[in-house]
Amino acid sequence: MKINFTPGPSQLYFTVESHMRQAFRDGVPSLSHRSKEFETIFQETTSGLKALLGIPDEFHIFFTGSATEIWERSLQNLVADQSLHFVNGAFSKRYYEIATQLGKSPYKIEVAEGKGFDQNVEIKSDVELIALTHNETSTGVSLPLAFINQFKSKFPDSLIVVDAVSSLPYPQFDYTKIDSVFFSVQKGFGLPAGLGVWVVNDRCITKAEHLLSKGISIGTYHNLPTLLANGIKNQTPETPNALAIYLLGKVVQDLLRRGIQIIRKETEYKAAILYQALSNHPLMKPFVEEPALRSQTVIVAETGDQTERIIKHLQKQQFYPGDGYGSKKKNQLRFANFPTHSKETFERLVDLFEEFA
Amino acid sequence: MKINFTPGPSQLYFTVESHMRQAFRDGVPSLSHRSKEFETIFQETTSGLKALLGIPDEFHIFFTGSATEIWERSLQNLVADQSLHFVNGAFSKRYYEIATQLGKSPYKIEVAEGKGFDQNVEIKSDVELIALTHNETSTGVSLPLAFINQFKSKFPDSLIVVDAVSSLPYPQFDYTKIDSVFFSVQKGFGLPAGLGVWVVNDRCITKAEHLLSKGISIGTYHNLPTLLANGIKNQTPETPNALAIYLLGKVVQDLLRRGIQIIRKETEYKAAILYQALSNHPLMKPFVEEPALRSQTVIVAETGDQTERIIKHLQKQQFYPGDGYGSKKKNQLRFANFPTHSKETFERLVDLFEEFA
Repeated sequence: MKINFTPGPSQLYFTVESHMRQAFRDGVPSLSHRSKEFETIFQETTSGLKALLGIPDEFHIFFTGSATEIWERSLQNLVADQSLHFVNGAFSKRYYEIATQLGKSPYKIEVAEGKGFDQNVEIKSDVELIALTHNETSTGVSLPLAFINQFKSKFPDSLIVVDAVSSLPYPQFDYTKIDSVFFSVQKGFGLPAGLGVWVVNDRCITKAEHLLSKGISIGTYHNLPTLLANGIKNQTPETPNALAIYLLGKVVQDLLRRGIQIIRKETEYKAAILYQALSNHPLMKPFVEEPALRSQTVIVAETGDQTERIIKHLQKQQFYPGDGYGSKKKNQLRFANFPTHSKETFERLVDLFEEFA
Repeated sequence: MKINFTPGPSQLYFTVESHMRQAFRDGVPSLSHRSKEFETIFQETTSGLKALLGIPDEFHIFFTGSATEIWERSLQNLVADQSLHFVNGAFSKRYYEIATQLGKSPYKIEVAEGKGFDQNVEIKSDVELIALTHNETSTGVSLPLAFINQFKSKFPDSLIVVDAVSSLPYPQFDYTKIDSVFFSVQKGFGLPAGLGVWVVNDRCITKAEHLLSKGISIGTYHNLPTLLANGIKNQTPETPNALAIYLLGKVVQDLLRRGIQIIRKETEYKAAILYQALSNHPLMKPFVEEPALRSQTVIVAETGDQTERIIKHLQKQQFYPGDGYGSKKKNQLRFANFPTHSKETFERLVDLFEEFA
C-alpha cells in the first residue's frame, strides 16, 4: 500500500475511513447544525482537543474553513495596526503578507530559510501581536518552545499567537505563555482538508471587542465575538463542515486512547532515526543544520542532484516523499512524521535510505 | 428509512455515500491541492456545473467554506460604498446586515415575510450591487425570474448578484441578466456541508481590482483576483475541502445523466402536488399566498396549532419535516423539494397530509 509522506494533505490517520462509514450510518452528513446531536459533536470534539493537547478549560476552540482563513481572521480580529512576524520560510512570510494585504502595518524579523532566531532577539515593545510559526512547513525549522515562551513576560501587552499547522498534536505548548494557537486537520491529525481549528483565550476576545468598539472592521460571521456567541452554545455561526468536526473528534479519541505521551515519544524516535540516517548518509544530509531547530514533524532532506533517483528508489517500495518547497523542489525532499506514520514505517524508510548508494 | 425534508443540511443525494467510498479508494482525501489529479477534479467539477446550470463559459467558478462566506466576500470585493438588498426574510436580511458589519452603507427595500416585491419597484440608480435572494429559505418565497431579469438593462452600472442557496440546481437563470450567483452544496445538491460555490463574471473581477487599486480592503486569500489567479490553473489559494469539490463533481455528473430538464419537471410536479394538498386541507395552508411567489424548492406550510400533531403523524412514517424558521418554529413546517426527493416520496407525503384530520 502506498504510504504518503507529504506534509499536508498528509496520509490519512488509519481510522478515518471507518469513522467516515459510521458517520454515514449515523446521519452525520445531513445533521442540522442547530440540533442537539450537532451540539454534542461540537462539545465532544472541543473537549477532546483540550484533553489531548493540554489546553486549559478557559480557552475557546472555534472552527474555520482552513488555517489560511485563521491567518486572515487572527490579524483582522487582534490587530489594529502593528503585528510582528518571525519569518524564516514561505508560510511565516505569507502570514506577514496577509497583514499587509489587510492594510495593517506589520513588521518582520527575517532570517534565511533553514535558520532560526537568536534567543535574545530585540523587538519593539509596542506590537499588538507577536506571530510565531512553530513549524515552518517549507523548510523543516521548528522554533524551540523556550523561544516561544520568552515573550509573554517581556511583552505582557502583546498577544502571542502560534501557528502550529504542521506540528500539532506533537508539541505540548505552555498555554500560560501564549494567547492563541491554530492548526489545520489535514496534517498531524491525518484528516481530509477543509477545517481550521482556532484556539483563543479571553484576551483575544477582549481585543476583538475593543477593535470593534473603535469602528475597526473585524469581519462578520467569523469574527471572534460571533464565534464566541455561537461557540458557547456548541454551535457555529454558519452551516459548518460538520462531518470534519465529527471526524476530528473521533481521531482525537483514538489518539487519547493511544496516549499523547506515547505519540510524542514515538514522534521523537521516528525523527531521531531519520535525522541520523540522513546525517550518516554519504549522498545527503538534513537541510536544517542546527539540531535544536530541527522539526520533529516535518523532516527536510537536502538530496541535491540525487533527488530524482532517491524518489524513484522510495516509490518502488510505495513510499511517496513530499517534494521540496518552491525553489527547493528539485534538490530537497520533505517527510511528514505524523501520528499516522508508524515506527515500522519509519524503520523501513531508514532502511531504504541506507540501501541507497 | 428516515427521509429528511429539512431545507439544509438536507437529505443526502442518494449516490453520495458510494462516491465517498470511491473517493477513499482513489486517495482523494489526501491528494495534494497542487497535484495534476486535484486540477482534474477542479476542472471536472466546474465544467460539470457549467453544463448542468447553463452557465456561459466566460463565467468563473470559485470555492469557499460556505455560502455565508460568500455573503461577506461578495460585499467586500464588489462594493465600495452602497449595495441594495431586497429583504423579505431572515436570510436576505442577514446579507444586508453583513454589508453594515463591513462598514458599507447598504440600503434595503423590505416587505413582510411571505411577501414579494412590486415588479415595478423604484430603486436608486447609483447602487454598486443589487442583492437578490432568489429563494428565501426562511419563508418559502421565491423571486420570479422576470423580477430578477429586469435590473440589468435598467441599471447597467450595477452588479446583479443572486443568492440561490436553496434553489439551485432548479432555476435556469438567464446569465446575460446577472453578474454573479452563489449557493452551498448541502441543499439542492444533497451533499455534506462545508463548501460554498461562487460564480462570477469578468465585471466582478474588474470591480474587485478597481476597489483594490483605490486602497479598499477586499480581503486576502479569498479575494477575487487571488481566486482567479489560482482558478485559471484549476487550483485554490488555500488547501481546500477537496473531498467536497470531488463529491460535488460526481453528483453533478449524476444529475447530468438524469437530465436537468427532467429534474426541473419533477421538481415542479412535486411542488404542485404538495401545494395542492396544503391548499385543499381543512387544517393547514401554504404560507405564501401568492402562487407566483411560491418556492418550488422550499415549501412552507402554515400548520398553526396542528404543528405538533402533524409532525408526529409524519415522523411515524419516517418523514421528518423541517421546523418553521425562527419565531415560526411552532406554527409552520418547511419541506425541501430537492433532486434527492423522489416523486414517490412526495406522493406518499401528500397521502400522509390527506390522511391527517
